[in-house]
Amino acid sequence: TELTNGLKEAIKALTAFNYGTVSTRADGKTVRDYEMIAMDTEVEIAKGIKFPGWSYNGTIPGPTIRCTEGDIVRVRFWNGSTHPHSIHFHGIHSPKMDGLEPVASGEEFIYEFEAKPAGMHVYHCHIPPLAKHIHKGLYGNFIIDPKIPRKPAHELNMVMNGYDLDLDGANEVYTVNGYAFAFQAYPIEVKVGELVRVYLSNLTEFDLINSFHLHANIFKYYEVGADPDARPIVTDTIMQCQGQRGILEIVFPEPGKYMFHAHQSEFAELGWMGFFEAKA
Amino acid sequence: TELTNGLKEAIKALTAFNYGTVSTRADGKTVRDYEMIAMDTEVEIAKGIKFPGWSYNGTIPGPTIRCTEGDIVRVRFWNGSTHPHSIHFHGIHSPKMDGLEPVASGEEFIYEFEAKPAGMHVYHCHIPPLAKHIHKGLYGNFIIDPKIPRKPAHELNMVMNGYDLDLDGANEVYTVNGYAFAFQAYPIEVKVGELVRVYLSNLTEFDLINSFHLHANIFKYYEVGADPDARPIVTDTIMQCQGQRGILEIVFPEPGKYMFHAHQSEFAELGWMGFFEAKA
Amino acid sequence: TELTNGLKEAIKALTAFNYGTVSTRADGKTVRDYEMIAMDTEVEIAKGIKFPGWSYNGTIPGPTIRCTEGDIVRVRFWNGSTHPHSIHFHGIHSPKMDGLEPVASGEEFIYEFEAKPAGMHVYHCHIPPLAKHIHKGLYGNFIIDPKIPRKPAHELNMVMNGYDLDLDGANEVYTVNGYAFAFQAYPIEVKVGELVRVYLSNLTEFDLINSFHLHANIFKYYEVGADPDARPIVTDTIMQCQGQRGILEIVFPEPGKYMFHAHQSEFAELGWMGFFEAKA
Ligand SMILES: [Cu+2]
Ligand SMILES: [Cu+2]
Ligand SMILES: [Cu+2]
Ligand SMILES: [Cu+2]
Ligand SMILES: [Cu+2]
Ligand SMILES: [Cu+2]
Ligand code: NA
Ligand code: NA
Ligand code: NA
Ligand code: NA
Ligand code: NA
Ligand code: NA
Ligand SMILES: [Zn+2]
Ligand SMILES: [Zn+2]
Ligand SMILES: [Zn+2]
Ligand SMILES: [Zn+2]
Ligand SMILES: [Zn+2]
Ligand SMILES: [Zn+2]
Ligand SMILES: [Zn+2]
Ligand SMILES: [Zn+2]
Ligand SMILES: [Zn+2]
Repeated sequence: TELTNGLKEAIKALTAFNYGTVSTRADGKTVRDYEMIAMDTEVEIAKGIKFPGWSYNGTIPGPTIRCTEGDIVRVRFWNGSTHPHSIHFHGIHSPKMDGLEPVASGEEFIYEFEAKPAGMHVYHCHIPPLAKHIHKGLYGNFIIDPKIPRKPAHELNMVMNGYDLDLDGANEVYTVNGYAFAFQAYPIEVKVGELVRVYLSNLTEFDLINSFHLHANIFKYYEVGADPDARPIVTDTIMQCQGQRGILEIVFPEPGKYMFHAHQSEFAELGWMGFFEAKA
Repeated sequence: TELTNGLKEAIKALTAFNYGTVSTRADGKTVRDYEMIAMDTEVEIAKGIKFPGWSYNGTIPGPTIRCTEGDIVRVRFWNGSTHPHSIHFHGIHSPKMDGLEPVASGEEFIYEFEAKPAGMHVYHCHIPPLAKHIHKGLYGNFIIDPKIPRKPAHELNMVMNGYDLDLDGANEVYTVNGYAFAFQAYPIEVKVGELVRVYLSNLTEFDLINSFHLHANIFKYYEVGADPDARPIVTDTIMQCQGQRGILEIVFPEPGKYMFHAHQSEFAELGWMGFFEAKA
Repeated sequence: TELTNGLKEAIKALTAFNYGTVSTRADGKTVRDYEMIAMDTEVEIAKGIKFPGWSYNGTIPGPTIRCTEGDIVRVRFWNGSTHPHSIHFHGIHSPKMDGLEPVASGEEFIYEFEAKPAGMHVYHCHIPPLAKHIHKGLYGNFIIDPKIPRKPAHELNMVMNGYDLDLDGANEVYTVNGYAFAFQAYPIEVKVGELVRVYLSNLTEFDLINSFHLHANIFKYYEVGADPDARPIVTDTIMQCQGQRGILEIVFPEPGKYMFHAHQSEFAELGWMGFFEAKA
């Protein structure tokens, strides 16, 4: 398979964590500054298929915003597109910072809040019509690490989404990280025995749920991951409605190619399918 | 926004708990008597939109039946409508009291059982065609308080539902407590720092799930709430299929308007959206 | 109701656990040999309704494969049908044994792996088009008992499924164990006070979820059942997306007929409905 631009972006999204530009405030708090730009962006969502999307920073999903609980998150949002947009972060913050207010074309707004609670969150545009603003591509993952870091792991970022190409309110293409069958063509390399941690969210519009199924193995699932004493679910199949998200911890016991996909056959066959390749 | 009758009922449903008429049985048990009447009722489900519903006691959702574990619940059900109906309660009781038996137009039946288990339940009509009898509006919440009361809280009752206006088997209007955008027009007032407890159920017909998402905050979610030692999920988004229900515990950390809505964009934009307004 | 062949098979599937042919390997491991044959099979799915299915061993769902954690499971799969097929087991095994490889018409393949983890799993064909190969009927339950057995119980096997009769990608008939209203006609007999354990899975194609609701009672739900220390959910209604499964533990407190069904009205009314009959 040709390593097209869309495919490159999907692979990059797996491990590209945007920690912002770090500084320290007078009170000792860590401040993280991020730049987010909404833009009209044609993205490649499968070999030869372009989607007339709206994006944060040029990709669908947008950048994975990452920080540590207690950090000051400061997101300078500039609307470089032709429609009003915003950024709605999940998690705790002042309701003034919740992205309900539209930021007009050419305008900017700075979202600022202390990051909490530790866990796996998401962000997305919150301007009506909401189905359109989300479906067009304005979403991404938002990870708040606990102050006491999670165990070291091979960490991966995944966003489940869909694309409605003919505007009938139903998706024809489903992906993880924006590109159909990305990790079928380029399996995700992991090491046998290492801890693999997946930050997974569902931003699929139109369909009521999406899901993640792993072959030949099981994983621990922490919904949101905000409760440090929560007991994970041990399974190989979880479902999420839009806006739900969680943390998967997986150990691959032997070498080989482990398929993963939605356990809705339709979604899997329309692109939401890939492989982990475990090497000794 | 004009405080129409439908809107008034939605607001009232938030805090109207029907504890019945209380008496004590010879054996010392508390008996609670409730009157429930099925009727054909045109209800206002949004500004200027009427729905030709079937209701218990004139409202959709019906009254919130509330009692304490171990109480004798005695519901005198009179069918004042033109179709056979019944009341099916969730929870434990004799299968003779489960509402499978139709109560003919003009007839009555007394449902009597000891309330258990403590937790958040629902009731609805169980006469076929079931999709029609539920969709028309014959449902409500049924709360059984534990003998050792839950912590004091500002308690709220919410039922998620939908309305199919053109009889195509799909909903065009979605609400919480029966009236579209009720709590957008009239935000639910809460106090900063107080414990807010929401008894939430999904009685939406036709759609496979519904969901509750809170802005700028998180909550603890107890599914059903029948296990006193259950560890809640800490999240801002939960989903329920029809008949599922649970208890949310929320504390608002600072003043402001906190949006809540289904995280299905369609449902939110068709009416299932509101605000908590937290005041210092 | 006439005890037709389809109905007989649904009843049989409740308690038919296939433990295979047992032998002991040189290293002392228990080996269980199973024979699975894919075939084109017309099955009766409701009184007078035939479905042109694909089956394992002649029934939809296929046999319930059962073993104990640590056993060597050896499944000789022969494809006696006119299409390529496979068996994909959930659970842990070598990815070489995951059923991605098609087994051609007239060919055979032996799936061999050590059974783990203990819990409730499923199997199904994994040949594209996946929606078709699953929907046609190639699926069943796969139970791995823990080495320390679960508490003795009256054990029952249930698979939720659906049938698309007019090939429009939507189901017209829903069942548990393959036959519409099977356990309405023939209620499942249980004893008051005994522990009833249900191994329940969802293999319904096309619909995003399915669910199980019990009348007049509650149950404990263990998702997958792979975590021996997991705290069950106490409820009367659970949902599963395709591929999800779990273990229900129920005690019926008094004699009577306890209805159970999907809490999607449509599914219940199209066949996914039955009764437990508890006897003193
Ligand atoms: Cu699979
Ligand atoms: Cu959201
Ligand atoms: Cu939101
Ligand atoms: Cu119900
Ligand atoms: Cu019911
Ligand atoms: Cu599967
Ligand atoms: Na479409
Ligand atoms: Na689709
Ligand atoms: Na409609
Ligand atoms: Na709708
Ligand atoms: Na069909
Ligand atoms: Na259907
Ligand atoms: Zn937008
Ligand atoms: Zn698969
Ligand atoms: Zn699998
Ligand atoms: Zn009715
Ligand atoms: Zn929102
Ligand atoms: Zn939010
Ligand atoms: Zn097949
Ligand atoms: Zn029922
Ligand atoms: Zn019930």
